[in-house]
Amino acid sequence: MRAEILATGDEIRSGALVDTNSAYIAEKLEETGIAVQRHICAGDDLKVLEDIFREVGDRADVCVVTGGLGPTTDDITAEAAAAAAGVGLIEDEEALSMIAAFFKARNREMTASNRKQALVPRGSKTLYNPVGTAPGFRLKIKQCTFFFMPGVPPEMVRMLSAEVLPDIEKIMGAHRTNCLVRNISTFGLTESAVGEKVAAVTDRFPGLRLGLRAKFPEIHVKFYLNGKDLPQMQATLDAATEWVKERVGKYVLSTEGEAMPRVVGKLLQERGATLAVAESCTGGRIANWLTDVPGSSDYFLFAGVSYANAAKVDILGVSAQTLDEHGAVSKETAQEMAAGTRRIANATYAISTTGIAGPDGGTEEKPVGTVCIGLATPDKAQGKQFFFPFGKRSMNKSIFAMMALETLRRELLDI
Amino acid sequence: MRAEILATGDEIRSGALVDTNSAYIAEKLEETGIAVQRHICAGDDLKVLEDIFREVGDRADVCVVTGGLGPTTDDITAEAAAAAAGVGLIEDEEALSMIAAFFKARNREMTASNRKQALVPRGSKTLYNPVGTAPGFRLKIKQCTFFFMPGVPPEMVRMLSAEVLPDIEKIMGAHRTNCLVRNISTFGLTESAVGEKVAAVTDRFPGLRLGLRAKFPEIHVKFYLNGKDLPQMQATLDAATEWVKERVGKYVLSTEGEAMPRVVGKLLQERGATLAVAESCTGGRIANWLTDVPGSSDYFLFAGVSYANAAKVDILGVSAQTLDEHGAVSKETAQEMAAGTRRIANATYAISTTGIAGPDGGTEEKPVGTVCIGLATPDKAQGKQFFFPFGKRSMNKSIFAMMALETLRRELLDI
Repeated sequence: MRAEILATGDEIRSGALVDTNSAYIAEKLEETGIAVQRHICAGDDLKVLEDIFREVGDRADVCVVTGGLGPTTDDITAEAAAAAAGVGLIEDEEALSMIAAFFKARNREMTASNRKQALVPRGSKTLYNPVGTAPGFRLKIKQCTFFFMPGVPPEMVRMLSAEVLPDIEKIMGAHRTNCLVRNISTFGLTESAVGEKVAAVTDRFPGLRLGLRAKFPEIHVKFYLNGKDLPQMQATLDAATEWVKERVGKYVLSTEGEAMPRVVGKLLQERGATLAVAESCTGGRIANWLTDVPGSSDYFLFAGVSYANAAKVDILGVSAQTLDEHGAVSKETAQEMAAGTRRIANATYAISTTGIAGPDGGTEEKPVGTVCIGLATPDKAQGKQFFFPFGKRSMNKSIFAMMALETLRRELLDI
Repeated sequence: MRAEILATGDEIRSGALVDTNSAYIAEKLEETGIAVQRHICAGDDLKVLEDIFREVGDRADVCVVTGGLGPTTDDITAEAAAAAAGVGLIEDEEALSMIAAFFKARNREMTASNRKQALVPRGSKTLYNPVGTAPGFRLKIKQCTFFFMPGVPPEMVRMLSAEVLPDIEKIMGAHRTNCLVRNISTFGLTESAVGEKVAAVTDRFPGLRLGLRAKFPEIHVKFYLNGKDLPQMQATLDAATEWVKERVGKYVLSTEGEAMPRVVGKLLQERGATLAVAESCTGGRIANWLTDVPGSSDYFLFAGVSYANAAKVDILGVSAQTLDEHGAVSKETAQEMAAGTRRIANATYAISTTGIAGPDGGTEEKPVGTVCIGLATPDKAQGKQFFFPFGKRSMNKSIFAMMALETLRRELLDI
């Protein structure tokens, strides 16, 4: 089956907005066993859209379209689709009642421009939108079945899974295969190093497709497997996962694709342990990551973001003498930050960061990219110095934060 | 001039990676005065790419291509371009010496697969790449001039500004116009409310193009103006900016497009003031935002991320009685968090957040989306309760964090 994706809208065409919908849809189609051939993006231009609908109508079996279904005069997707299909627009009763119900439920008045959203090409099938005013529709243009959805991501996500993917699976009929996906997250090796270690997996396990995904600073290894025999496919993925774990070893974070903050959170939870954090150069990034995980209040107690040296001494309990003798960016300060924060927060573990994220503040001895990471446990406190060559402030904050969490992960797993 | 953008690569085609290059390039072309007509994305498939090069060669004057210039066997852009142009591949001496110099400068050995990167279509012009191994090239296919660049964003960004945009400006010749851009950041109104207030700007200032850009939770108003008379254009933009400021009033953050953390940072710096933060539900997001700004150590002293109630009492100095009587999510607790943190960090100002980001923890009285924000100044301490209907944990953390910074901004500006 040949599939394409089309994103419409001047915001996307002009680069004012990055199109994240198309990648999301492509990934979902891949998981359904369909390889997307092209994505296209075009602005709110009737003639251009009409041309594209005709071209794609000749070339693809299925096309998933987002955007241009809103109430304003810029929203011309339905008009362009009708023109390409050679039909007129009609007011769809079902669509109109959906829109009316949306406004009624919110006690708001429906305007004339919202009524326009019920205009769909004759012969199309309405797609339900429970979370917005714009209904979608399905329409055949030439040999291709087009699915038109709103561009607002949560509305698109919902309509795709509830209406579009089930319809596409019906169109695939007997050709339909299952696609299983496995995601193994890793940290500590470069993308090319991970790639070299796992490249042979596609020879060992025929039919498996391999994708490497850099989610800085993690590298995710992704497998896709198409077929009809689900238990057999599951067994193949399990075996391939074991093979990767043997090759990549301690750098594997999770065979369920989980990111570091969740992995560390689970390890703490399993041990009934709690965590406190002392951040200087990472400026709250570790705490922000940890608390993005729902339920993190079970193990995360406190973070002290001590940008000023006085705060390191007065609040986190670092000794003024240590700061004086070794400097703020030192193993000794990192160790005392971790020990002090563990004590004041009454936590099982504490980690700390103090370093130079840049762009300023580097010296010859301690250039931008230098970080000292502290760890305090019930038995010990330590500090270690690292250097990362990324240079950019934001990347440094992330890699420093990751290294602190990695230090804790290795401690918890004793690796 | 008709321009298109093409992104190649299976990672992008399959949705494993979101294509941010095309939006970046589109925006830069818009600023050069060129409206992009389409973006296309396709995988590493020789036949598909060749077809696309021919199609675009018939349709556009200029096409900017990213990806597929790497050293692996997947990287087939040069081969597909040569086939579409009906020419062969040759080893380009200039390209080869660039690649050799790259490896020599890094004391690394050049492999045979890197040598492949010097293969370019006959008749193309090499584009210099100072930050990576893949040189780019320029090639005419049918009536269109194609610019081929690597897909790695920093390499693309550099080559675009150093080689591609100047070349495109030459191609535009006498048709070339300047494009000025102005970005006004706002917070506190919805996108449609901002849109209604500023829509008439394009009538008042003919030639001005208006773009609204939602950078949740900020709304940015963007103007583009093309022309030849730069001083006149500058004056028009200044007048339009003043007009918007009058209409949008106190919701304008910056007429230079600056985001809230930088705006607040500048206000503190101008006053020689310092800031401490106490975060419960925002979990470090405020501190992380503030410290993303280079130089923030001038005014940002400390943040206490007190997820546990004990930390609120023991470290930030909230009274156990207040927590007991009013609960952790209350105006009273927020006020004491701010006052206590201001005191222990010895800061001029402190802000605080305590609320329910979700998904769990909501009650009928205080549903998910409830937040109390505290402010402590040299003269007073206060707490206020707000409710935001976004529902999602990550959005709640962001809007709570923004509202705390907005509370401080209004205090500093006395608005």
